Amino acid sequence: MPKISIIVSSEKLDKLFPAMTLATTAAAMGWESEVFFTFWGLLALKKGYEPKEVSLDYKGYEDELRRAVSSGAMPSWREILEQGKKTGRLKIYACSTTMSLLGIKAEDLVEYVDNVVGAVTFLGRAKDSDINLFIS
Amino acid sequence: MPKISIIVSSEKLDKLFPAMTLATTAAAMGWESEVFFTFWGLLALKKGYEPKEVSLDYKGYEDELRRAVSSGAMPSWREILEQGKKTGRLKIYACSTTMSLLGIKAEDLVEYVDNVVGAVTFLGRAKDSDINLFIS
Amino acid sequence: MPKISIIVSSEKLDKLFPAMTLATTAAAMGWESEVFFTFWGLLALKKGYEPKEVSLDYKGYEDELRRAVSSGAMPSWREILEQGKKTGRLKIYACSTTMSLLGIKAEDLVEYVDNVVGAVTFLGRAKDSDINLFIS
Repeated sequence: MPKISIIVSSEKLDKLFPAMTLATTAAAMGWESEVFFTFWGLLALKKGYEPKEVSLDYKGYEDELRRAVSSGAMPSWREILEQGKKTGRLKIYACSTTMSLLGIKAEDLVEYVDNVVGAVTFLGRAKDSDINLFIS
Repeated sequence: MPKISIIVSSEKLDKLFPAMTLATTAAAMGWESEVFFTFWGLLALKKGYEPKEVSLDYKGYEDELRRAVSSGAMPSWREILEQGKKTGRLKIYACSTTMSLLGIKAEDLVEYVDNVVGAVTFLGRAKDSDINLFIS
Repeated sequence: MPKISIIVSSEKLDKLFPAMTLATTAAAMGWESEVFFTFWGLLALKKGYEPKEVSLDYKGYEDELRRAVSSGAMPSWREILEQGKKTGRLKIYACSTTMSLLGIKAEDLVEYVDNVVGAVTFLGRAKDSDINLFIS
């Protein structure tokens, strides 16, 4: 089966959307799919934290994007993620190196995180992927 | 022949330039080359719309970049794209999922768009690429 | 041996950190590792220039990141790079196309730059990589 590995280093909505759409679509196609949250991306995995903004570069479109989600025209990034998890083929990893920088402990992470891993583990897994992407 | 697939999710000049330079260079080398415009990147494919800004992070360099292009020291990103299209090996795709979010219809797209495709089609094509990049 | 190729187009600290961490970790694992600095990323290779900022999107975390580095809790991105260079397997390339745009000459580059190369050379090298990433 093909495999995709995505690193996400931002928790802005316009980064989480493409990341989760690609990862979940791949999982739905029967692929192995993994998303590695690092740096500011890690914030999106914190219990009780809800990403609400788009990148400053596209601030003017923020309301439009939120409205599309709240009206049901678009699923939220988290709904897309949950859909992916249901396939059993989407794995979510949290970057161990940046956990302490952001003051995030293992028990602070949402329950759908499969593991906390470092760069060595990530590289070993990504090496066998057909598609590698860095979304920042 | 080698193949490169690039996703572009921004229409800032400092994102379009590297995307089109890599895609067109690859096409000129005889490679298969495809660029998939998604999210804010899609705006660059809208008829009558001209991207004019660099990322806020590098606003201070905007005039310099524009001057380099208007003086002819650098080709514009669109000229680079058109050069790539002439090889017959550069394909331009528009992301169907974000078309409605941005209120863009198929007839609003510039004529050099080869197709409107979704994530499933993209993943199927990118899987066979030697180089996959996400430029955001 | 596996190989990783990373393009970095920004000199913000939150982009340099993941780029250098992945590149140096790969080199330490015995991989071939190369980082190609292009566009604003090139600034980080200029003699006497010290990147000090994170992306505007995460300005609120800038002091935290700097403190983590100055307190020794985290190595600086340059220390990570130097660690990578010691393995003899990390190569640093400067993008020839953007040198003139930023007014940077070969003699302005720090001594650990292995070569100044264009898109053709980069693509030829990246084609054989197991992992390709664009960090912008």
